[in-house]
Amino acid sequence: MTDILHGNLIQAPSFGVLETIPRGYLVLEDGVIEDVYRRLPERYAACPVTDWGQGLIMPSFADLHLHAPQYPMLGMGMDLPLLEWLDTYTFRTEARFEDLSYARRVYRQLARDLIASGTTRVAMFSSRHAAATLILMEELERAGVTGLVGKVNMDRNAGLSQETTEESVSETLRWLENCRFRLVKPILTPRFTPACSDSLMEALGKLAAERGLPVQSHLSENRGEIDWVGQLHPDCAQYWESYRKYGLWKKGTLMAHCVHSDPREQEAMAREGVWAVHCAASNVNLCSGTAPVRELLNRGVPVALGSDIAGGDSLAMNQAVVMAIRASKLRQMETGEPFLTVPEAYYLGSGAGHRYFGGGGGFQPGTKLHAIVVDDSGFPEPARELTLSERFERAVYLMDRRSIKAVYSEGVSRL
Amino acid sequence: MTDILHGNLIQAPSFGVLETIPRGYLVLEDGVIEDVYRRLPERYAACPVTDWGQGLIMPSFADLHLHAPQYPMLGMGMDLPLLEWLDTYTFRTEARFEDLSYARRVYRQLARDLIASGTTRVAMFSSRHAAATLILMEELERAGVTGLVGKVNMDRNAGLSQETTEESVSETLRWLENCRFRLVKPILTPRFTPACSDSLMEALGKLAAERGLPVQSHLSENRGEIDWVGQLHPDCAQYWESYRKYGLWKKGTLMAHCVHSDPREQEAMAREGVWAVHCAASNVNLCSGTAPVRELLNRGVPVALGSDIAGGDSLAMNQAVVMAIRASKLRQMETGEPFLTVPEAYYLGSGAGHRYFGGGGGFQPGTKLHAIVVDDSGFPEPARELTLSERFERAVYLMDRRSIKAVYSEGVSRL
Repeated sequence: MTDILHGNLIQAPSFGVLETIPRGYLVLEDGVIEDVYRRLPERYAACPVTDWGQGLIMPSFADLHLHAPQYPMLGMGMDLPLLEWLDTYTFRTEARFEDLSYARRVYRQLARDLIASGTTRVAMFSSRHAAATLILMEELERAGVTGLVGKVNMDRNAGLSQETTEESVSETLRWLENCRFRLVKPILTPRFTPACSDSLMEALGKLAAERGLPVQSHLSENRGEIDWVGQLHPDCAQYWESYRKYGLWKKGTLMAHCVHSDPREQEAMAREGVWAVHCAASNVNLCSGTAPVRELLNRGVPVALGSDIAGGDSLAMNQAVVMAIRASKLRQMETGEPFLTVPEAYYLGSGAGHRYFGGGGGFQPGTKLHAIVVDDSGFPEPARELTLSERFERAVYLMDRRSIKAVYSEGVSRL
Repeated sequence: MTDILHGNLIQAPSFGVLETIPRGYLVLEDGVIEDVYRRLPERYAACPVTDWGQGLIMPSFADLHLHAPQYPMLGMGMDLPLLEWLDTYTFRTEARFEDLSYARRVYRQLARDLIASGTTRVAMFSSRHAAATLILMEELERAGVTGLVGKVNMDRNAGLSQETTEESVSETLRWLENCRFRLVKPILTPRFTPACSDSLMEALGKLAAERGLPVQSHLSENRGEIDWVGQLHPDCAQYWESYRKYGLWKKGTLMAHCVHSDPREQEAMAREGVWAVHCAASNVNLCSGTAPVRELLNRGVPVALGSDIAGGDSLAMNQAVVMAIRASKLRQMETGEPFLTVPEAYYLGSGAGHRYFGGGGGFQPGTKLHAIVVDDSGFPEPARELTLSERFERAVYLMDRRSIKAVYSEGVSRL
């Protein structure tokens, strides 16, 4: 079936490139992008057109790092030091997902909130619970959120949320057996090196190799953590090597934060194709620092953005884009490294993440449509007619759930 | 007439103090706070009660620095260096307010947006135009926004927006003659030292003294500007002295930014009772830096917050509070100076500003009510029952126009 979307088309197909087509046409065949056009080709003349008027049609957001069971604690505990925050809020909140009816309610709200905020692809941490993780995946699929979800593994230093090594492995197997979803797939998720014993890391590395499963975890978020990993793995010169030792450091592995990754660690990421997921709001909220994003990119490390709720305080990925710009401006003042422009940061929060999942950076023919439609008519009345680039920039800063009028995920309208 | 508001009362009556009364009573006599009560005194038993249920009743926000004629450019030009941003956007946009019907439309939208965002008191820059400034004051008063508005003075280095010295003075007099508003009063507004000739500064200083008018301007926002002032006033050891020279440095003078104010400048503020208005988002967006807020406070300088649109990208003062916290966390990482807690930063964005205008820090008996009611029932379902302090903290981070259910300004419900 042919569908045609008509409106102002805006895309950042690659890092730093912005393309606009005023009142253009986006042609879909069964949800797959056929192409975009300035004028509608004759052969589509008879097809139905969805006209979004002056709306801005742009690729949706991809959130490559967030903790689903921390959604209930969004915006709380921000005055606490990291370890107290983990004990008072994080581990206690995550432990609640033993209760499956609670999990169902919270995850349904989260999945709808993601779609309403324009996020259609995610790489997500769940809790340690296999059953709640399956409920999370089911609710995401129902709402139209696609991507990867991981049951978290943590058999040490995880307070109330801790499991034994045996439980951790058997729950993981039970969870994997029951992962039968079309759009949401499993990803192995050792919480981070200090929370996983050597034998658990070994078991997960084996599983990753045997079943070809992807991996996500945390890397070099703060200095205390880095020192801790050094004590736990004296044979590893750097944090990342504690993942490599067990076969978890491989192409497509997602590493959240990388705030303190030095050139050697960055080169190890570039060499192996490991991704850095930049979570600017969380890194400031938890006093971790500002990540060297441009340095990572210049070294060839693939970078995407994450909301990192609930270290981050907002699911809205346009706000994650704005915070990435702000963090880069703070770094520029410190190091002289040029800040991220709006199109650059938007690409990291959108196209880069879509590419991780095999999609296109922008509206790439042959890929399923992941897009939002923004109505900017409620924004302040401008002093003159704006270019589409200006309207794009303003939308990145000002959009919220009220201005996001449509969300397409995997080619289907979901809002 | 007696009005009683019933709900969860939350206030930060002074810096760092948070007080909560679960399901308490706030008694108003003709819009003036009589007192707050845990239980309703017998003598009010027959009075009508507005029950906000589980809503959070808390003091509204006060925005002590924003540029009304920059509202149309909100969220744009953020990739440009400061001077190019001024030329391409700011001066051109401000020049549009020659057109009074445009001014009427934009200022009406702005005034409503302020109320919807929970801001009931402002200290605001207008453009150079007397007529448009009067329209701005009229629209604020109509919507219920109270405070101070200044016709901007700028007879040099102001591109398209520039006026001659004679025009600047005569327009100011014409504007002052026509300021007949109940809740919105005039404030003298030399844009900043580089945009005002010595004779203009002199005329404004004279006017301030003769009519007892308050003054607002900018101070030490970035290093280039500070050097520039040094060249323009070689007789002044520091930026602030260029204001003092003309009688503009006095008790209650509002100085936006103070990012690079050193101990000597800070002491001059404390000594004279000059206020620092901290605009964290703008200072990062324009790569100015992070202001030494706790240092200013420790030296006895009164501090309030400003959205500084359109260097800032959001009118929402809860976001200004959150950005002030983030900026303070970045400073803590750099200098070790403790960050601003949520109650501290909220006080700066609310009570401190109300006090500037003679109101109370919290619900102080004898002052007119300035408050918002936040409905947090749409926030993520928590993992356990939350304390009111936790709900307060979460509301500061998560509230938006959808969750602000009521706004009281000068004792009157305005939303």
